[in-house]
Amino acid sequence: MRTNLPIDETGLWDDLMALAARTEPDRPWTRRAFSPMFLEGRAFVAARMREAGLAVRIDPAGNLIGRREGRRADARAIVIGSHSDTVPDGGRFDGTAGVMAGIAVARSLARDGRELDHAVEIIDCLAEEVSIFGLSCIGSRAVAGALSAEQLNRQEPTGERLAAAIERMGGSIDHLGEARRTDIAAYLELHIEQGPVLADQRRDIGIVTAIAGITRIEITVEGRADHAGTTPMTLRQDALAGGAAVVTAIAKDARRRAAAGHGHFVATVGEFRIEPNAANVVPGRVTMLVDARAEERGFLEGFVTELPPLLQRALGGTGTRLADFRVISDALPALSDPMLLDVLEGASDTLGLDAMRMASGAGHDMAWFSRIAPAAMIFIPSKDGRSHTPEEWSEPGEIAAGAAVLHEALLRLDTMLA
Amino acid sequence: MRTNLPIDETGLWDDLMALAARTEPDRPWTRRAFSPMFLEGRAFVAARMREAGLAVRIDPAGNLIGRREGRRADARAIVIGSHSDTVPDGGRFDGTAGVMAGIAVARSLARDGRELDHAVEIIDCLAEEVSIFGLSCIGSRAVAGALSAEQLNRQEPTGERLAAAIERMGGSIDHLGEARRTDIAAYLELHIEQGPVLADQRRDIGIVTAIAGITRIEITVEGRADHAGTTPMTLRQDALAGGAAVVTAIAKDARRRAAAGHGHFVATVGEFRIEPNAANVVPGRVTMLVDARAEERGFLEGFVTELPPLLQRALGGTGTRLADFRVISDALPALSDPMLLDVLEGASDTLGLDAMRMASGAGHDMAWFSRIAPAAMIFIPSKDGRSHTPEEWSEPGEIAAGAAVLHEALLRLDTMLA
Repeated sequence: MRTNLPIDETGLWDDLMALAARTEPDRPWTRRAFSPMFLEGRAFVAARMREAGLAVRIDPAGNLIGRREGRRADARAIVIGSHSDTVPDGGRFDGTAGVMAGIAVARSLARDGRELDHAVEIIDCLAEEVSIFGLSCIGSRAVAGALSAEQLNRQEPTGERLAAAIERMGGSIDHLGEARRTDIAAYLELHIEQGPVLADQRRDIGIVTAIAGITRIEITVEGRADHAGTTPMTLRQDALAGGAAVVTAIAKDARRRAAAGHGHFVATVGEFRIEPNAANVVPGRVTMLVDARAEERGFLEGFVTELPPLLQRALGGTGTRLADFRVISDALPALSDPMLLDVLEGASDTLGLDAMRMASGAGHDMAWFSRIAPAAMIFIPSKDGRSHTPEEWSEPGEIAAGAAVLHEALLRLDTMLA
Repeated sequence: MRTNLPIDETGLWDDLMALAARTEPDRPWTRRAFSPMFLEGRAFVAARMREAGLAVRIDPAGNLIGRREGRRADARAIVIGSHSDTVPDGGRFDGTAGVMAGIAVARSLARDGRELDHAVEIIDCLAEEVSIFGLSCIGSRAVAGALSAEQLNRQEPTGERLAAAIERMGGSIDHLGEARRTDIAAYLELHIEQGPVLADQRRDIGIVTAIAGITRIEITVEGRADHAGTTPMTLRQDALAGGAAVVTAIAKDARRRAAAGHGHFVATVGEFRIEPNAANVVPGRVTMLVDARAEERGFLEGFVTELPPLLQRALGGTGTRLADFRVISDALPALSDPMLLDVLEGASDTLGLDAMRMASGAGHDMAWFSRIAPAAMIFIPSKDGRSHTPEEWSEPGEIAAGAAVLHEALLRLDTMLA
């Protein structure tokens, strides 16, 4: 354990555990956005912001913001953001580590009596996880001016609309446009990796070069539903046999592309179902969803373009056919700002931390902030790569090391930025 | 079309269509056992039995029986059986073709004024299809004395017990033991093939040598559920990749065994599901159900015994493991009586019909009758092998040809049997 970090490791850890304790008691750890428990968590976050000397407000989009003014009134703000909501049955670190690390940085500034030129803001973005409205990154979308009227009109199962729910969180839909920011000099975010790479390679810090683009493709394989007892093996058109060939071909192709030296690339068949799914019927149809993510846009496009002929070859001889191949969603990669990457790398070096550049396969608030400001992220290790599960874990020292990188980068940026 | 058959083809076809018209109107063709519509169908069947000169009764197990007495009071009965219930959204021929063919045979006997030594019975067995009680072949089980107290106590979703439902069909649970028969000299059943073999080989008649044994095996492949965006391809334990390898290995092995010259053999993965089945999560677990059927018991046992090591080899290198392999049900093959096979084959030859010996991959009432009497079946062609679907189809001439084989076999057996 490093003892020379400019961060109170114990205080940061205690804050995290205290926030985690605000959970639905029967399903730790759960604090979903818009729930009463979420508001309890936010009350704790706001209190900790105030104790760190920050002026607390909620913007019209429902983002919770703690601000420390700078010496230069004309200077834009340096923002440290993440989120305090969780998935159902999630962990204690996803999002919260970034918010509490930001507050710990502010506490260090206050403790040391440091005066900065730039204002510093810690933002707890509303509803980063997929919410009860079926939408993620609600707060950061609004900061980027990208929360649409259609989205605001969405209803959750009991009937509340998103617009009303944002107001219940302290926002103001009439002034939603004011949540859009043009005064951010730089955005930094600390997050747990949610993957196994840092732990596997025994690194302290991941310098996130990009958030991967995500393309989702729905694939349907059609055969013929026949009686499983009476249809000879030679006369079958078994859609599951075809579906298995497709899954195998996609996995093989994805492994090849991931090793091709074009940065982060993964492809996953995460949803898969067969019809009619009855013990005594040869499957007649298989539907699956492919989730492909890449750091390089062109590389992802190559995968999508070359996939149909690959799958048609894989289905050859199975008696089944590729009945549908449909891109159902497509998000571009979000690139980090190169100067910020250098600053984060330099800060890590100075602190004696072992950092590596890597892409994020998961989405984050940073993707939305990167549309309106120079933005970058750092990752800290996730034990066994686990996330969105109660087993999610990062060590107190790992979190404090990440917070120290934010602290050091903030001081450097304060002198470098206009 | 043959015109010299001893069966009124038009009358048989009209009977079949009139019975099919007794269907739930919004979902043709549906006449599930124990429903009011089933009782309507049975009233029609009973009326047609009476018009064919048969004495009609319902046995204590709820089987509908039409009987024509023979000259010899000491002779056992020759039985022609099948069933009049359907699956939901089923066809117009499965089961009903056999019952109505039996009645057409009786009609021919009456028309021709033929006196036989043996009594002849046409039996409409209760609930051959999987019923609302989750049980099939209820009536024929009882005839074999194999309907258990546990089964009689089963409840359907609205609370009725099977025992009460049988009484509602006209049965009598207090006298259930009397449904068990020891007076059957031979059992014959005509059924649609429900497979494509006869149509594919352009044959008129299938002489069914055996009803395949059925073994069902539940297989679980375990990997690890990880974030689909952040977990590199090289660090995955993707249970769906493992599941696909298992499906492919089973299909390949089944094709090899089916071609090995040991009679009918099929194996099907008909149920398959993945967990957690979410777009952004690498599948952590796959569960599937294998349905394997074989004419030769030893051959089926060989498949089951040799499967686990085969699957373990298939999973090698996928990072996943065979977590469970469990035989959840196992039914022995039911063999036809060799003398009856010869009689049916001779009858087909005499009528100028092209017959072939084959096994049945599907279960039938014959399997239960074969426990208490010499038994055999014939198949007639199913268009495209379709069954349990509204598209189920057999030609009027094909059905009449099958009925003619029953008629001819019946006359021969009457002189051959004690």
